[in-house]
Amino acid sequence: MNQKTKINAEDGRQELMITREFDLPLELLFKAYVEPGIIEQWMGTKVLKLENRNHGGYQFETTDPKGNKYGFNGVIHQFVPNRKITRTFEMENTPYGIQLEVLEFEKLSDDTSKLNMHTIYESVEQRDQVLKLPFAQGINMAHNRLQDIVSKPAYRSGRIK
Amino acid sequence: MNQKTKINAEDGRQELMITREFDLPLELLFKAYVEPGIIEQWMGTKVLKLENRNHGGYQFETTDPKGNKYGFNGVIHQFVPNRKITRTFEMENTPYGIQLEVLEFEKLSDDTSKLNMHTIYESVEQRDQVLKLPFAQGINMAHNRLQDIVSKPAYRSGRIK
Repeated sequence: MNQKTKINAEDGRQELMITREFDLPLELLFKAYVEPGIIEQWMGTKVLKLENRNHGGYQFETTDPKGNKYGFNGVIHQFVPNRKITRTFEMENTPYGIQLEVLEFEKLSDDTSKLNMHTIYESVEQRDQVLKLPFAQGINMAHNRLQDIVSKPAYRSGRIK
Repeated sequence: MNQKTKINAEDGRQELMITREFDLPLELLFKAYVEPGIIEQWMGTKVLKLENRNHGGYQFETTDPKGNKYGFNGVIHQFVPNRKITRTFEMENTPYGIQLEVLEFEKLSDDTSKLNMHTIYESVEQRDQVLKLPFAQGINMAHNRLQDIVSKPAYRSGRIK
């Protein structure tokens, strides 16, 4: 199946490059990464903390159908509205370590935009373990939800913040 | 010259492993990384902010003999007293990007300890550029100062916090 979110994983490297083009203006794409109410919808997670600023932090929590809770959290090194977020990311209680993520938001046209996400792992082994998860499908599905949710007229018109 | 701080830089990788053994008890070595008054002495820098906790941040500033100021800062993802600090690091206004640093503090004996510092760069190119600086000498000299300063009887006896 042709997935719209592309993942480039070079052999033997401890990094991934993830790219996705959206039929969304840059400002709406960026909003989907910083507004807790929108994040909760497309990521399917509860936003316990999200400090959108240099030296801020975030804490998210997901609950599976059995009621088990999974936490993930990180710190935001750099926050440049509509352009760039550099942060760490950790899936708690997993062997995947702590990652450095550089998210760049790019305007393609008035109605289209692109996410470039560079993820750097502590080791090649950790990156390769993550790639054995249904990672590519998961992020592609999440991005599809992002596209659908933020495309709703209420978001486009700015009625829902 | 035989430097006590060892840097392992494998070709083509975007990471460094820095190790140093100190003639210091683990608790004193750790203190040298978290007490602003001690950091200022061995790093030769002003500590403008240092939040020693999960999701804390730090901001340091160095002034050269001409009065030019150089800032560096980062966020602390994980802070485990006497064991581990995972943080980001940025030398501001340089092309070296933002690094992920994993510092592990290890007890060797009652009087000796070891620092294992894993630094991960955004790219191989950035790491290689940093290695062209007098980086190895600089960190070795700073660690020598750390050893000397924290060895003073006042620190060892716990009189100076």
